[in-house]
Amino acid sequence: MIPKPYLLFLGDAKDDLAIKTAAGISYWKPEWCIGQLSFSNAKATLNLPELSIEKAVKSGAKTLVIGVVNAGGVMPENWKQTLIEATQSGLNIASGMHTRLSSISEIKSSAEENNVELFDLRFNDQTFSTGKGEKRSGKRLLTVGTDCSVGKKYTALAIEKAFVKNNIKASFKATGQTGVLIAEDGIAIDAIVSDFISGAVEWLSPDNDEDHWDIIEGQGSIFHPSFAGVSLGLLHGSQPDAFVVCHEPTRQNMRGVKTPLPTISDVIDETIKLGSLTNKNIKCIGISLNTSAMTEGIGSLKQEIENEFELPCLDPLIDDLTPFVNQIK
Amino acid sequence: MIPKPYLLFLGDAKDDLAIKTAAGISYWKPEWCIGQLSFSNAKATLNLPELSIEKAVKSGAKTLVIGVVNAGGVMPENWKQTLIEATQSGLNIASGMHTRLSSISEIKSSAEENNVELFDLRFNDQTFSTGKGEKRSGKRLLTVGTDCSVGKKYTALAIEKAFVKNNIKASFKATGQTGVLIAEDGIAIDAIVSDFISGAVEWLSPDNDEDHWDIIEGQGSIFHPSFAGVSLGLLHGSQPDAFVVCHEPTRQNMRGVKTPLPTISDVIDETIKLGSLTNKNIKCIGISLNTSAMTEGIGSLKQEIENEFELPCLDPLIDDLTPFVNQIK
Repeated sequence: MIPKPYLLFLGDAKDDLAIKTAAGISYWKPEWCIGQLSFSNAKATLNLPELSIEKAVKSGAKTLVIGVVNAGGVMPENWKQTLIEATQSGLNIASGMHTRLSSISEIKSSAEENNVELFDLRFNDQTFSTGKGEKRSGKRLLTVGTDCSVGKKYTALAIEKAFVKNNIKASFKATGQTGVLIAEDGIAIDAIVSDFISGAVEWLSPDNDEDHWDIIEGQGSIFHPSFAGVSLGLLHGSQPDAFVVCHEPTRQNMRGVKTPLPTISDVIDETIKLGSLTNKNIKCIGISLNTSAMTEGIGSLKQEIENEFELPCLDPLIDDLTPFVNQIK
Repeated sequence: MIPKPYLLFLGDAKDDLAIKTAAGISYWKPEWCIGQLSFSNAKATLNLPELSIEKAVKSGAKTLVIGVVNAGGVMPENWKQTLIEATQSGLNIASGMHTRLSSISEIKSSAEENNVELFDLRFNDQTFSTGKGEKRSGKRLLTVGTDCSVGKKYTALAIEKAFVKNNIKASFKATGQTGVLIAEDGIAIDAIVSDFISGAVEWLSPDNDEDHWDIIEGQGSIFHPSFAGVSLGLLHGSQPDAFVVCHEPTRQNMRGVKTPLPTISDVIDETIKLGSLTNKNIKCIGISLNTSAMTEGIGSLKQEIENEFELPCLDPLIDDLTPFVNQIK
């Protein structure tokens, strides 16, 4: 368990999607977050007090959480400076980056000198087997997407809440660094050695009671040229009985590449096609619409999608999700 | 470069597929292999002299190559003993296992004491970017499969030979530990962190002359519940112009799992469907039939497959591959 409360580090975030880790924690666990720390050139912010390290420590912060992705995976020099300062002020550091904090010698030695801890959430000491593809007991729901960063984690967390509220046994299963930070459990699947993707998911979502649902956070998209391998291994390992397609209707190209977005229909068809390898009964139970970038036409778009697929279309941050729950009853 | 010649270690191999690394090296690089070392309970063998470590060293062996897969990824105690003995006799050790040789303290310290090297071929110090999905110059052919261990590497190596013989510029690109041992180049893609599967393949097969073909070794199968994620990332990163489907017609279930094999037709259709994300012009140019376990009916089966798909069907270890070459001309 990471000592709380947190100071969320936003650095020089280039856009809103770059701070999705910080945004996720502050949305789902506001009680853990006492402030944010961003550089003057940051292009994104949260609605949290802007605190210096000194002020954050005075306010009781115990851990600085890196809430921003670093372009290219290399830690910029000015971040390093701030992180060292944090350790010198007695803050632990938590990170979901591919680079281990402890692999950066100045940060490692400063943490040791100042007796604070470094938490690398993307790493897991667990040894996995390769996937078996055999049916496990219990039920599973997976959130899949037309792209990265469209709301798969939020949807899964909101569905878990809705299931529990409706007296259905359900557990959120985190598969990314932000999800792991929120749930304080799970596996960052994109950091697993590729031979073990589906095996790691089988481990994450083992046999369970027949009436229990694992609500598994999806990753990427089977149509994303960078990450489809992760998405497919996650689909096979999850062997979902049900899936929800997450979509952000204003997105033009897939995140970080020039590839156009697939349609919701493409995603439904291909997820059923590929997912039936490990669960013949896989079916789509609804569409999760991320309307955060829309100002008008939300109602009519939802209606259009509901008519096309004859399935509920809901924004999980706005709408009551009972229609999704009713689909699985 | 690993010092040669090699003593191929077969240990207590449980079946022929378990020694596919040793078999691959001895088939493609017989001049590198002076003998094999197997335990009395081994259930597979090569046609190489059985040599003790002492005899192998006297015969000039420089490196013991682990040519067998270890079930479950844990190194058995009796292997460890033999490997330590090898280092004590002055042999280097090369391994393609997921476990680093240097992570086994007794082996590491014995190698240091005896001044021999440990080669962990599955690991690569290269840092990769995530895949971009953009078209690169030059041409690419990928071997795909109805299963693991059906002949994707042999097919790729044989196609490279046939292309070169027909004066077409071609390079074999290894993507697995055996391929890397044979080519002394390449990347074991299944050991890459899953976020970088397609990016690593983009790195492995960069821009090239327009008339140059990379012949890329496939891995697993998009229908294998353990490894489909690797296969899909490899397909997207390869962005193949052409692919050959490799098939072993006597195989009942997919290797290591209870899932039945897909048909050749399933593999062609789904490879085109998924592969068109990064190359709209992807097409199947032939079927590679691994007839090593067949005793009769080979000719008629080939004919049947050729008729069904209107494509050449060849056994790359028996037949002349000019028909494949003609397909890409």
